[in-house]
Amino acid sequence: MDVRQRVGRNLKKYRKEAGFSQEGLALECGLHRTYVSGVERGVRNPTVVVLERIAEALNVPAARLLDDSES
Amino acid sequence: MDVRQRVGRNLKKYRKEAGFSQEGLALECGLHRTYVSGVERGVRNPTVVVLERIAEALNVPAARLLDDSES
Repeated sequence: MDVRQRVGRNLKKYRKEAGFSQEGLALECGLHRTYVSGVERGVRNPTVVVLERIAEALNVPAARLLDDSES
Repeated sequence: MDVRQRVGRNLKKYRKEAGFSQEGLALECGLHRTYVSGVERGVRNPTVVVLERIAEALNVPAARLLDDSES
């Protein structure tokens, strides 16, 4: 699976666990809702700085967003 | 610690464990040596796609490059 799709799948999972809508998470991170949506759909290629901002808002280590649950 | 510095420290560690020079790793990944050097020094902000390329060359999961060994 492409790394962007992996990040998207993990983000969606942790966002829902944290009880955020895409818009709520975007506001929390200072990102645009369509950007968060793009990351979740695997069409965006976020940098590690953005990944860290998202992970902090979700209160998970940034490394979790890169996890490959199949490995 | 800034996420870029964390990635840099982890990259250096795994690169040395894998027995690569910066130049050797750069060649393996199709990146420029100065780019690899910049990531190690924490002055570059790589995307997840680049992180994955580096991780594949080092034969470690990409998530390891984001690990915070202090947590």
